[in-house]
Amino acid sequence: MNEGDDRRLARIALTWLAEPGTRSVHDLVKRHGPVAALDLLLSGDAPDRLLRAAVAVRTAAGDAHAVAAEALARAERIGARLVTPEDDEWPTRVADLRKLRLPEATRRVDVETDPPLCLWVRGGWPLGETLERSVAVVGARAATPYGSHVATELGYGLADREWTVVSGGAFGIDSAAHRGALTAGGRTVAVLACGLDRPYPMGNAALFDRIAETGLLVSEWMPGAEPLRPRFLIRNRVIAAATLGTVLVEAAARSGATQTLNRALGLERPAMVVPGPVTSALSVGGHQVLREKPETRLVANVAHVLEEVGRIGYDLAPLARAPQRPRDQLDDDAAQVLEAMPRRRTIDLEHIAARAGVDLRTAMRKLSMLEELALVVRRDDGYALAPTDDAHGARRPSDARHDTTPPTDASAPPIDNRRDAGADR
Amino acid sequence: MNEGDDRRLARIALTWLAEPGTRSVHDLVKRHGPVAALDLLLSGDAPDRLLRAAVAVRTAAGDAHAVAAEALARAERIGARLVTPEDDEWPTRVADLRKLRLPEATRRVDVETDPPLCLWVRGGWPLGETLERSVAVVGARAATPYGSHVATELGYGLADREWTVVSGGAFGIDSAAHRGALTAGGRTVAVLACGLDRPYPMGNAALFDRIAETGLLVSEWMPGAEPLRPRFLIRNRVIAAATLGTVLVEAAARSGATQTLNRALGLERPAMVVPGPVTSALSVGGHQVLREKPETRLVANVAHVLEEVGRIGYDLAPLARAPQRPRDQLDDDAAQVLEAMPRRRTIDLEHIAARAGVDLRTAMRKLSMLEELALVVRRDDGYALAPTDDAHGARRPSDARHDTTPPTDASAPPIDNRRDAGADR
Repeated sequence: MNEGDDRRLARIALTWLAEPGTRSVHDLVKRHGPVAALDLLLSGDAPDRLLRAAVAVRTAAGDAHAVAAEALARAERIGARLVTPEDDEWPTRVADLRKLRLPEATRRVDVETDPPLCLWVRGGWPLGETLERSVAVVGARAATPYGSHVATELGYGLADREWTVVSGGAFGIDSAAHRGALTAGGRTVAVLACGLDRPYPMGNAALFDRIAETGLLVSEWMPGAEPLRPRFLIRNRVIAAATLGTVLVEAAARSGATQTLNRALGLERPAMVVPGPVTSALSVGGHQVLREKPETRLVANVAHVLEEVGRIGYDLAPLARAPQRPRDQLDDDAAQVLEAMPRRRTIDLEHIAARAGVDLRTAMRKLSMLEELALVVRRDDGYALAPTDDAHGARRPSDARHDTTPPTDASAPPIDNRRDAGADR
Repeated sequence: MNEGDDRRLARIALTWLAEPGTRSVHDLVKRHGPVAALDLLLSGDAPDRLLRAAVAVRTAAGDAHAVAAEALARAERIGARLVTPEDDEWPTRVADLRKLRLPEATRRVDVETDPPLCLWVRGGWPLGETLERSVAVVGARAATPYGSHVATELGYGLADREWTVVSGGAFGIDSAAHRGALTAGGRTVAVLACGLDRPYPMGNAALFDRIAETGLLVSEWMPGAEPLRPRFLIRNRVIAAATLGTVLVEAAARSGATQTLNRALGLERPAMVVPGPVTSALSVGGHQVLREKPETRLVANVAHVLEEVGRIGYDLAPLARAPQRPRDQLDDDAAQVLEAMPRRRTIDLEHIAARAGVDLRTAMRKLSMLEELALVVRRDDGYALAPTDDAHGARRPSDARHDTTPPTDASAPPIDNRRDAGADR
C-alpha cells in the first residue's frame, strides 16, 4: 500500500472514530497529517477527554484500519468513490469552514464545524467542478404545496441557467428543488447524512438513483453509516460551505433548515429567504430570520437569487432590460462557431469546425470561450447551444428534454478536470 | 365675523384655490398668516407661475370667500366640522410633513408634501386624541383573500389593544382593516380623498356611516369635492403623517399603497410590510420595498407591529413571555379601584368610589392612571375594564360587543379634550 492510500484510509478511519467536522480531530490532522493523527488517536493520546472516550467506544467495536478498508471495498461495489483534499476534484470552497463563526445560540462546546476530511461521491461528474457554480435550496420536510411549487421553480430556473442545485435529499422542499433541477435537465447534488448505500428517506430511493445518474450523491459518512439524528445538523454545514449561497424556502421556527442558513451567514455567504403567507406556520422560520438577521436577503425568484450569487456581467446581463449580451462581444471566429451550432441537437468538434469553416484548434479554443460565456454547453457526445433567456426561446419544464448524462466513455473521463480532458481531444 | 372665523374661512379658500399640501401656499401662510396669504393669492401676486395659473382658473369659476362660507354651511348640514391648527383637537403630528423627504424617483417639481391647512371631520371623537395611538394599515384595492384576511386580523388586533386603525376607505385592504377595527369595537379613521358628503367608493357608503358612528371620517377637501385621481396620492401623505407607523399589507409593484409607505419612510416613521406568497402579483410591491429599503421592517402579526410603534413597557409587556404586567405595579388605592370594576359592564364614578371604598377625587385620579396604563377605558356612560391579553380572557371577533359609541351628551362634550372634560364631572 502506497503513502497516498494510507492517507486515504486514515481519513476514512478518522471520520469513523469521531463525527466529521470535530474540531480537535481536524487540528490533529492539520498538525500531523491524517496518518499520524490516526496513530495518535488509536494510541489513546487524543488531546481531549470527550474525543478519547469516543475513540474508545469505536475501537472496542472494531479495528479502524479494517473498517476503512471494508468501507472502500463496499463503496466500489455500489459505484461510489472516495474524494479527499488531495484529489483534483475536491471542492476547495469547503475549507472556509475553518472560518465558520456561529452565533452563541447555536454553538455547542465541541461543535462539528470543521471541513470534511473526505467525501464519498456517487455519480459521473467531477465534484469540485459541479459545485463551482452552485446554490443550496433547503427547507422543511413538511412543505406546503406553495413551498414545493416555489422550490421546484427555483430548482428548475437555477439548473436552466447552468447552476448546480444542492440540497439534502429530504422530503418536501429538498426533493422539490432536486426534481426542479432534474426537470430542467440540469445538475443537482444531494448531500446525505448517511452512507450512500442507505438512501434516507427510503421513499426517495428512486429520486436518489436519478440524481446519481445525472448529478451527484455526496456524503461524509462511509457506506453503511446510519442517518442518526445529529448527523443532519453536521451535514448542513457542508451544504452551506459547498455552495455560493443558500436559499431557505419554507421552515418552521428554529428548524434544521434555518440552521443551514445560519451556517451560510457564519461563512459570510449570501443567505436568502423566500417569504410566504404570514398565516402559514412554515413561513415563520424564514420570516424570523429576515427580521433578526439584517444580512439575510429576501428573494422572490431566480433573478433575485442570481443577483446575490452571480458574477456581474455573467449571470446578470441576460436578465437586465436592455442587455449587452455576451454574444455581442464575440470575435468573428467565435461568432461563426456559434452560428454553426445546430438549434436543438448536440454536435461533435469535427462537424462544428467544418460547418464554421475554421480549423479544429480554432474551433476548440472558441468552443471553450463560448462555454465560459455560458453560450454553449458540453455534453458527453459533443457540444450544444446553452439554454437562452430570450422571452420566446425560454424553455418551460414541459419541453425540457436535453440530455445531461455525465460523460462515461473514454473520450471524456468521468472524473478528470473538464478543461484538461478537452485539450486531449 | 371675528378674526378666528376669518382665518378659518381663509384656510378653506386656500385649500380650494390650490391642491392641499402645495409648498408655495404653505410658505405664504407661514410668512403672512392665512388671511393675508389668501388676499395675496386673490390679488394675482402669487410667487410662482403655476400657482398663479391655478388660482386664475379657480377664481374664474367662483368667489373664494363665498365658496368657503358655503362649504362651512354644507359641512354643518352633513354633521361635519372644520378642524384647523388653531383648534385643540388638531393632530399636531402632521406638522412633521414639513420635514418630509421623498426619494428622487417619487418627487415632482411642485409636489404636494406640506401639512394640511385644515381638515374636515365627521364623528364624535376629538381628532388629535384619536390619532395619538394610531397605526395606518394600507394596501391594494384588488386584495386577495389572503391579504384581506391579514388586514382584518391586524385591524382587529390593533383596535383590540386600543390602537386607532387609520386607512383610506378604499375597497380591499383598506376596507378590511377598517372592518377589523370595527369588529373589535375599536376606533378607526378613514382619511378620504374627496368631500365627506361624497363617499368614494360608493359601495363603501354603509362602511363610512359605521366609521363615522364609532370612529372618524377625515378629509382635506371640502364637502362636494370630487375624488380626482391625483388626490389619492396627496391624501396618502396625511395617512402616513397622522399615524405612528404604516403597515403595507398587499400591493402591486410601485402602486399607490407603496407610496404611502414611502411617505412614512420619508418621515422616518416605522414603515412595515406584511410579506406574502411570492407567487402572488399583489405581494410584489411589498417584497420590492423590503428588498430595496433596508429601513423597512417585515411584520407578520400585531405583536411585530407593536414592537415598531409601541412604547416599551406599555404595549410590549403584555406580549412578553413572563410579563411584568402593569397591574403588578399599582399602588393600593389603584389596585382597589381596579378590583372594584365590574367584569363586563360600564360603571360610573360614584359607584366605583363606593365599591372601592375611596373618595371621589381619589377614584378619579386612580381611574386616570388606570386609563393611562390601558387597564381601564372610558365610555360615554362611565368606565369599563380594558380588554385583556390573557390567553383565557382574550376576545375573538365573534364575541366582541363592547360599546364604543363616542360621547354625545353634555356630560362629555364630543370634541373637547378628554382629560379636561373628565375634570369637570
